[in-house]
Amino acid sequence: MKLSVGVVGGGQLARMMIPAAIELGIDLKVLGETEGSSARQAVTVVGDYRDAATVLAFAEGVDALTFDHEHVPQPVLRELVAHGVAVRPGPHALLYAQDKLLMREKLAALGLPVPDWARARSTDDLDAFLRDHDGRAVLKTPRGGYDGKGVRIVTSGAEGADWLEDGELLVEEVVDFRRELAQLVARRPSGEMVAWPVVETVQRGGVCAEVVAPAPRSAGRLADIACDIAWRVAEGLDVTGVLAVELFETVDGRVLVNELAMRPHNSGHWTIDGSTTSQFEQHLRAVLDLPLGATGSRDPWSVMVNILGGPQRGTLADRYAAALAAQPVAKIHNYGKDPRPGRKVGHVTVGGDELDDVAYRARAAAAFFE
Amino acid sequence: MKLSVGVVGGGQLARMMIPAAIELGIDLKVLGETEGSSARQAVTVVGDYRDAATVLAFAEGVDALTFDHEHVPQPVLRELVAHGVAVRPGPHALLYAQDKLLMREKLAALGLPVPDWARARSTDDLDAFLRDHDGRAVLKTPRGGYDGKGVRIVTSGAEGADWLEDGELLVEEVVDFRRELAQLVARRPSGEMVAWPVVETVQRGGVCAEVVAPAPRSAGRLADIACDIAWRVAEGLDVTGVLAVELFETVDGRVLVNELAMRPHNSGHWTIDGSTTSQFEQHLRAVLDLPLGATGSRDPWSVMVNILGGPQRGTLADRYAAALAAQPVAKIHNYGKDPRPGRKVGHVTVGGDELDDVAYRARAAAAFFE
Repeated sequence: MKLSVGVVGGGQLARMMIPAAIELGIDLKVLGETEGSSARQAVTVVGDYRDAATVLAFAEGVDALTFDHEHVPQPVLRELVAHGVAVRPGPHALLYAQDKLLMREKLAALGLPVPDWARARSTDDLDAFLRDHDGRAVLKTPRGGYDGKGVRIVTSGAEGADWLEDGELLVEEVVDFRRELAQLVARRPSGEMVAWPVVETVQRGGVCAEVVAPAPRSAGRLADIACDIAWRVAEGLDVTGVLAVELFETVDGRVLVNELAMRPHNSGHWTIDGSTTSQFEQHLRAVLDLPLGATGSRDPWSVMVNILGGPQRGTLADRYAAALAAQPVAKIHNYGKDPRPGRKVGHVTVGGDELDDVAYRARAAAAFFE
Repeated sequence: MKLSVGVVGGGQLARMMIPAAIELGIDLKVLGETEGSSARQAVTVVGDYRDAATVLAFAEGVDALTFDHEHVPQPVLRELVAHGVAVRPGPHALLYAQDKLLMREKLAALGLPVPDWARARSTDDLDAFLRDHDGRAVLKTPRGGYDGKGVRIVTSGAEGADWLEDGELLVEEVVDFRRELAQLVARRPSGEMVAWPVVETVQRGGVCAEVVAPAPRSAGRLADIACDIAWRVAEGLDVTGVLAVELFETVDGRVLVNELAMRPHNSGHWTIDGSTTSQFEQHLRAVLDLPLGATGSRDPWSVMVNILGGPQRGTLADRYAAALAAQPVAKIHNYGKDPRPGRKVGHVTVGGDELDDVAYRARAAAAFFE
């Protein structure tokens, strides 16, 4: 047997699967959108993931097909399944990571805690929702949004008129949250599931900036609630591979589901250095229906800081000499992407015994790349 | 700046540099001897490392050239240097990893502790040495030996006659050792050095079978002696990159240098999972003259067990389902090589708090692949 996994999408998530694949001896191949993508070392085909013939030809002979992103259209996914490709997660699950309206409906049907929400087909619908929610709401395009894109705060129906031209929208209460959390789990087709500790995620401008693992003061009740929610989502939606459930911890102590991602996720990058099994290794094991690895933490605390944008001149590597000398414990991950304002070009993880020290070192190392 | 490293040799050591290179965003390229080598994902040229023109063309544009093995001939190395290639370790250092007679002479000149030894040009030389050493000695070919090859116990000069036809030999006392140790260090051209904890290595049939990190009961005196020896070797021979010093701990409590390797080494494979900085990442940092990483251990104990030979039928991957289910904490490393009796085809590492438990789990996981 030769284990083979195909990944649609050549971003940093596909890139970070490569080390895990090499160590386990998995033959990983990537369908990249462009030449020179972040995962270029494993790219075997450059082509359009929206073209069924391209993806079908790429998937020839793989034991499992998985994803760097959730943008592959349903008709393409279903054609792959019809041709016998083991698509993981399957189209029936991925649907809920692709469409936020369907996701909200499904989670509500499963009895999972979500913010107040409604389907908005018109500015009247929006105004009605706003009347019931103190005149402020979060408007989301059901598809295509990420990293703060496709999300807007509105105070009148008119403010959503432009987006409504493209179809119906999801409108949600503005959750009064204390902090954001994320629960990462992995599930294989045979049903086995494992969970990492719940983490705290810090967003800046709608983009993940830092992750603290585990979330401070989460042991016990909060960890149990987060884990229970993620397991119910994974089973209820029949997710295979890694599932990230983004959560709000509200000021009044509730835990609500914000977003889902059915793939390795920024909130789990710390697991490369901080967990016995990284999310990337686990994702490969899960989509191949291999037994899952232990998710114990290597350190009491891990802090991951994203490198956003990168240096204005030159490359990340220009800053290595200074950064590595200053922080010998920092693990620097470089996505091999050209620096551009706001772009995720790398991250730094530090682990250790004292949260203050760990967070300081991770931020200090990352700061060399700004 | 784009960091680029060329590796001569496509074995598992080159292969295990790939994950570290991807995470750090280093452009790694490998000169493989054959198609389908262990490091095939990074092979850019297949050719003969004994041919200067081949290696010179391969090295074009790299920031540093390093090695998966020590077999590149000195004239090739010197031609690379003459053309301005940053060869690391340099020919003047690599010489002592290539020729055991020169190594013994140099270490003796540096005052480092070595077994009794002599240069043997004839069976008379051997007989003379045997008379002074209770009639038993270890005979070694100065070049080309590894994993127990090129080593023989002799009790008479006549037993060395065949090897003497090919040139002079190294003859050494049969060291009455309690156990074998290895000290791994890394040194960069600017002089910075770091050391990992001294480890115990267990050989079977002249081949490394297991490594325990740190070596049990080594804290204090033994760790200090091992580290001091390795640092003196690294500085005395001007080694750059990772240096492994294989040591004997004698029954009467001395520590003697056995062999040297100037590259990542089997005794350091545990560092991938067990140390803040793996020997593969450190080697890349060192040969690029980047600041070195922290060498703290992630666990009180790490045990690495080699997978020798592999399954008689099929591949390592055929055994994954059983092995991973039985030992979820085991980190399995598959070198992507065809199983063959005695061949190193992979290894397993387990870390944890209790040595007995860790060793049991590592051996149990590795046993699935026999």
